[in-house]
Amino acid sequence: MISQPAFNVEPWAVRECQLHLDVLAQAESVFALSNGHIGLRGNLDEGEPHGLPGTYLNSVYELRPLPYAEGGYGYPESGQTVINVTNGKLIRLLVDDEPLDVRYGTLRSHERVLDLQAGTLTRKAEWVSPAGCAVRVTSTRLVSFTQRAVAAILYEVEPVDGPVRVVVQSELVANESLPDLGRDPRTTAALESPLILEDNVVDSMSAAMVHITRRSGLRVAAAMDHTVHGPDDTQVSVSGVGDVARLTVAAQLRPDQPLRLVKFLAYGWSSVRSRPALHDQVVAAVAAARMRGWDGLVADQREFLDQFWAGADVEVDGDAEVQQAVRFGMFHVLQAGARAEQRPIPAKGLTGPGYDGHVFWDTETFVLPTLTYTYPQAAADALRWRQATMPVAKEHAERLGLDGVCFAWRTIAGEECSGYWPAGTAAFHINADIADAALRYVDATQDSVFERETVLPLLVATARLWRSLGHHDLDGRFRIDGVTGPDEYSALADNNVYTNVMAQQNMAAAADLVGRYAYDAKGLQVSPEEAASWRDAATAMVIPYDHRLQVHPQAEGFTDHARWDFDHTTSDQYPLLLHFPYFDLYRKQVVKQADLVLALHLRGDAFTAEEKARDFAYYEPLTVRDSSLSACTQSVMAAEVGQLELAHDYLGEAALMDLGDLEHNTRDGLHIASLAGAWTALVAGLGGMRAGTTGGISFAPRLPSGISRLSFRLFYRARRIQVSVTPEAATYRVLDGAPLPSAHHGKSIVIDDQATTYPIPGIVPGPRPRQPVGREPISRHLGGTEP
Amino acid sequence: MISQPAFNVEPWAVRECQLHLDVLAQAESVFALSNGHIGLRGNLDEGEPHGLPGTYLNSVYELRPLPYAEGGYGYPESGQTVINVTNGKLIRLLVDDEPLDVRYGTLRSHERVLDLQAGTLTRKAEWVSPAGCAVRVTSTRLVSFTQRAVAAILYEVEPVDGPVRVVVQSELVANESLPDLGRDPRTTAALESPLILEDNVVDSMSAAMVHITRRSGLRVAAAMDHTVHGPDDTQVSVSGVGDVARLTVAAQLRPDQPLRLVKFLAYGWSSVRSRPALHDQVVAAVAAARMRGWDGLVADQREFLDQFWAGADVEVDGDAEVQQAVRFGMFHVLQAGARAEQRPIPAKGLTGPGYDGHVFWDTETFVLPTLTYTYPQAAADALRWRQATMPVAKEHAERLGLDGVCFAWRTIAGEECSGYWPAGTAAFHINADIADAALRYVDATQDSVFERETVLPLLVATARLWRSLGHHDLDGRFRIDGVTGPDEYSALADNNVYTNVMAQQNMAAAADLVGRYAYDAKGLQVSPEEAASWRDAATAMVIPYDHRLQVHPQAEGFTDHARWDFDHTTSDQYPLLLHFPYFDLYRKQVVKQADLVLALHLRGDAFTAEEKARDFAYYEPLTVRDSSLSACTQSVMAAEVGQLELAHDYLGEAALMDLGDLEHNTRDGLHIASLAGAWTALVAGLGGMRAGTTGGISFAPRLPSGISRLSFRLFYRARRIQVSVTPEAATYRVLDGAPLPSAHHGKSIVIDDQATTYPIPGIVPGPRPRQPVGREPISRHLGGTEP
Repeated sequence: MISQPAFNVEPWAVRECQLHLDVLAQAESVFALSNGHIGLRGNLDEGEPHGLPGTYLNSVYELRPLPYAEGGYGYPESGQTVINVTNGKLIRLLVDDEPLDVRYGTLRSHERVLDLQAGTLTRKAEWVSPAGCAVRVTSTRLVSFTQRAVAAILYEVEPVDGPVRVVVQSELVANESLPDLGRDPRTTAALESPLILEDNVVDSMSAAMVHITRRSGLRVAAAMDHTVHGPDDTQVSVSGVGDVARLTVAAQLRPDQPLRLVKFLAYGWSSVRSRPALHDQVVAAVAAARMRGWDGLVADQREFLDQFWAGADVEVDGDAEVQQAVRFGMFHVLQAGARAEQRPIPAKGLTGPGYDGHVFWDTETFVLPTLTYTYPQAAADALRWRQATMPVAKEHAERLGLDGVCFAWRTIAGEECSGYWPAGTAAFHINADIADAALRYVDATQDSVFERETVLPLLVATARLWRSLGHHDLDGRFRIDGVTGPDEYSALADNNVYTNVMAQQNMAAAADLVGRYAYDAKGLQVSPEEAASWRDAATAMVIPYDHRLQVHPQAEGFTDHARWDFDHTTSDQYPLLLHFPYFDLYRKQVVKQADLVLALHLRGDAFTAEEKARDFAYYEPLTVRDSSLSACTQSVMAAEVGQLELAHDYLGEAALMDLGDLEHNTRDGLHIASLAGAWTALVAGLGGMRAGTTGGISFAPRLPSGISRLSFRLFYRARRIQVSVTPEAATYRVLDGAPLPSAHHGKSIVIDDQATTYPIPGIVPGPRPRQPVGREPISRHLGGTEP
Repeated sequence: MISQPAFNVEPWAVRECQLHLDVLAQAESVFALSNGHIGLRGNLDEGEPHGLPGTYLNSVYELRPLPYAEGGYGYPESGQTVINVTNGKLIRLLVDDEPLDVRYGTLRSHERVLDLQAGTLTRKAEWVSPAGCAVRVTSTRLVSFTQRAVAAILYEVEPVDGPVRVVVQSELVANESLPDLGRDPRTTAALESPLILEDNVVDSMSAAMVHITRRSGLRVAAAMDHTVHGPDDTQVSVSGVGDVARLTVAAQLRPDQPLRLVKFLAYGWSSVRSRPALHDQVVAAVAAARMRGWDGLVADQREFLDQFWAGADVEVDGDAEVQQAVRFGMFHVLQAGARAEQRPIPAKGLTGPGYDGHVFWDTETFVLPTLTYTYPQAAADALRWRQATMPVAKEHAERLGLDGVCFAWRTIAGEECSGYWPAGTAAFHINADIADAALRYVDATQDSVFERETVLPLLVATARLWRSLGHHDLDGRFRIDGVTGPDEYSALADNNVYTNVMAQQNMAAAADLVGRYAYDAKGLQVSPEEAASWRDAATAMVIPYDHRLQVHPQAEGFTDHARWDFDHTTSDQYPLLLHFPYFDLYRKQVVKQADLVLALHLRGDAFTAEEKARDFAYYEPLTVRDSSLSACTQSVMAAEVGQLELAHDYLGEAALMDLGDLEHNTRDGLHIASLAGAWTALVAGLGGMRAGTTGGISFAPRLPSGISRLSFRLFYRARRIQVSVTPEAATYRVLDGAPLPSAHHGKSIVIDDQATTYPIPGIVPGPRPRQPVGREPISRHLGGTEP
């Protein structure tokens, strides 16, 4: 096993028992709390030291210029960047005359616990000031799943050795200065102090501030209210000046006489509502929180999570790290999506400023499938957000000379923010990925209202895009030229297999939907001729195949390209994009992340088992996994072709991406897609679950030697199902709902409320494929050696 | 004929008889004087009004940051931009109390003449001040071909109607404020006031200034000295303060009593020499000019040009515009290259700041062939400059993981300055273009010292580049993947035919040279094995061919791509790059500039006549000619396949590129490559001249109906040859030198000092190919209709 020295391995919690200042930023991401609307990084209560202070509101961004050394037609001139909004989690403490700052004095003990069942982050610290006063501080923080606009903090301080005078300052602070991000100075300038103060109003125990962003014109409001319990002579005052509002509590404490502060926080933002309206909105939200009280919020939080885990938990026996990591991942996936409510789920959720806070295809391809089977309403909402951006996506398509809609490769509010089009706009597959997620959601939920209102328009518009993007060649085949597939170490290729099979599905499904919703399709001006042209294009789609090698080239010509010189690439030269020019990467056989292999998973129906095995074996030695969006897919396909130990290794990489900081950038936020992918690696990989556009759900579970039992629950077509797998057999049961036709290793079965067990057939895989030297996944076997 | 209202059509001059302020900048480019070292735009003597003030020194540049919205490994962080150095051509005039400014008062007459035989620009103006004083001003300007550091101006002013008091101010001014170029504000800032004053020293009639550039650290010196002839009481004083040095001449003039001022100018720059050394250098240069005197400089200039025209003139009977334009073009090609002396020949020469003053492949592919046969020493010097940049090009290759050298796509001093790599660094063909120019020069001059000292190292290093850039595929064929050919509406394609055939020639010729210079090759560490690997790669080179269409695809897959929708592209949407995204252009069959057709010209030996005819016919309807580097090549190949009227039309476009401002950017400088290409269109096109790497020279002349006679002279292997062509026959003669074996329409002939005439065989071309709607070349036939 690899070691995770930063955090204890426990099944339902992530516990940090020592404070390491050098990895503070990573811990801030891991301990971030969010409900999809509000995100609070796990900054220490007192604000400093910090890695990266962060308080985010979904879709609150500032505009910044996008500069080009050589411009081009249609290049976006400004980008959207998530900003650090008003920080409401600040609670500073003065112990006698010393501010609590763990860089000074002595930190006798430190513990932080992210409780995955309670949905809280608790910190316990015993600190001795430089002057020798010892205090015990306990704080518990939550971002409410049940009250979307609300967060709360319970803060307690008590003396340890003798009486002490304390002052607690609970604050709202806007325009915090941030560490230098080392970026273009113009960019940094645009994002410095992005908030313009409109209002700072204080009351006896409360305060509210309203700001507006300088360029994007978004109004942001934050409010705080408090309850204070302390000695009778405790004094409380409140003030608000400039970008700071502050409640000050001064008390003289004796041991066993704690000061207890509950801070209720509320946030809101709007691009249209007025200053007074937004002010009143957050003041109302904080009043609702106060009414419910701390204990009520905590109870609601746990009840919400109990319900979630009852439908979504995955049990993994034999690999305690993966057990912890998959629950940690599911918790963060839920946090990213639960209350996003028709706003996007960014690549980093609301855990950090990485990738400018943008949403990419990750969401639809990796996050929404997981949510679809575990918390489906969040998947629907994320797709409704995409639907809401269709007018912008239509304009984008028009600028590109295309029909239908073209969704942004990276965005917050819908507008294309990609400053490098070969790996941005040209990655058209995002449009088919959105269609795939929508089809998968409807397959799982049978939600015909959503299908008619959201999926039909999405699929019609994307089918139109594909039809205009491709063309029939001299031989009548339908080609899609000059686009970029998922593998970002290739670009602008002809007939990328992944893109083509996903577009094929998109067009065929759109034609089917038009047939089933003929009345609504007419409203979208779809003629039978148009739908037929989609079906024709799908049927005639070019799927390149290399008959010499008997594998699918990732795109036309790919298998003719020179192989990357892996033998002379040293391990410190990864990720390759930081050490080699795109020019060199693009023209060689080297794969950043699963591309053809992702097609084998998502369009498994389009490939034979033999093709899958050969293709997987061909691409493994070429895939360097320089993206976090690869290990989970490689795990799924490794499992399907019987490479179970390899599947386990990749599962570990996907699951431990952030707890292990495997890509060395967890400081900027968590890799939500990889965390969601860990679930997919377990359920679709080892569990062999397949469902989606072909109708119905099936399983083909198999366990690697290191996992003795896997059990997971999921929602499918109004049922809650439990699947439990041992090395020898799998047991299926419907927990709620009617019997469900399914399949076990290709054999039809019906799952009902009686647990039924089926034996798992053996498989004889080929030799374990090799990976590029130095890029093998970390082995899940003790000592790092292979079995 | 198209009309050129701005300039009279004369055989040996470009004459402007009216001053049009709205096209002032274009005229400044057309009237620019240069010797390849110093460049003076045709600004009015008095400095204002101006389109764009410009004084340039070859290779004097400033660095500016290159910003990226999304950066990447190896992207250049700063670029080199030509700067406007100290302006020494300023001569201001005060008439009584009114400054001569043609925007005020009355300009009774105006004429400017660029004399292509004298090498001077003369201006005559009669101006009446707002107060009613009339003066006649005559100035003649030259940039000396014989004294490289020197320019001179003869300035005369005399009253017309009655006595007048005049003050003439002759100046040196640094850091002139320039019109807003509408660029990135950071860039503009970096280029504002780029010169830091180091020295400003005046003497009785002279002054000298030394500056250093702010970031690039280049030291620039300028000096002026004067002779003044006027009435006895004429007063002269001189002053120098800050960035201005000024000679002031005050005189009271009567009619027929002119004031005559001769201004001698000298420039120098260095990256290493000290301030005093550089100061003394320009003071010495100006002294040498003064010693020779105005009349001496004028006489030297004419003698130099007489010699040039004796070897380079082209006579065109029947098309007076083309006659003028080709001489205008040759004059500017000479100006760009004559005294560049191991410095680059930029795309705009020294006529304007376009393309940042960078040199591209244009020089080797379009300019050097013309110079090779007309002023060969300039071609050799330009290639020696490339050779001098080999250390930088070697580092560039290393950064790209390649062997040998990789020359910069765009640069001034050798470093890659391309801020968009798919159309910059990826355009590797520049390396083979340099090799081609070097081989062509040696073929024409038989200069074996140059061959050994310059061509051998250039070819070895570029052959190494190609060998490492390509690879042998499964079938043993040598592929060059992921590069960009000449056509900038495609990028990053596999096996671009132009690139591959040029690389093929490069590697084969390198292997041959290594055999012939075995001793020197050993010094370059070339083993026989290495040379053999070049020959193998050349032999196995992939040349894609589409058997269905019986044409060569420009690159693999090109003929499978969708055709651009020319029918729905309106004429105001050209150039396409300003109205459509690269994404769309790259993936479709649309050609910005000759690419495959350029291969048909430069590697004519690699294609059959039938292939050339079919390929030319295929690409004509796809080629939109959005680049000035296309018409000349289309003209050459149109002539070869017998489309003589079309060849004439394209010849006109190449020749009139700047006199007609056909691309609407002559204001930024002349299109030197197109002007050189006009010569090529006449000599290699209508004259059918082929020479170069295959050994020997041959002709296959044919005239279009609009040209009754074509006669040209050129240098080849120590001979001066004259070829005269009529519709029926061609006459060949060696003017100086031994008899020369050659060929006329494929039949071997020997050209000697007796003019010998051979009949021209007929040709039956296919139907005239069509061009994209709205992109047909302007017809050279009266009324614009076809014959």
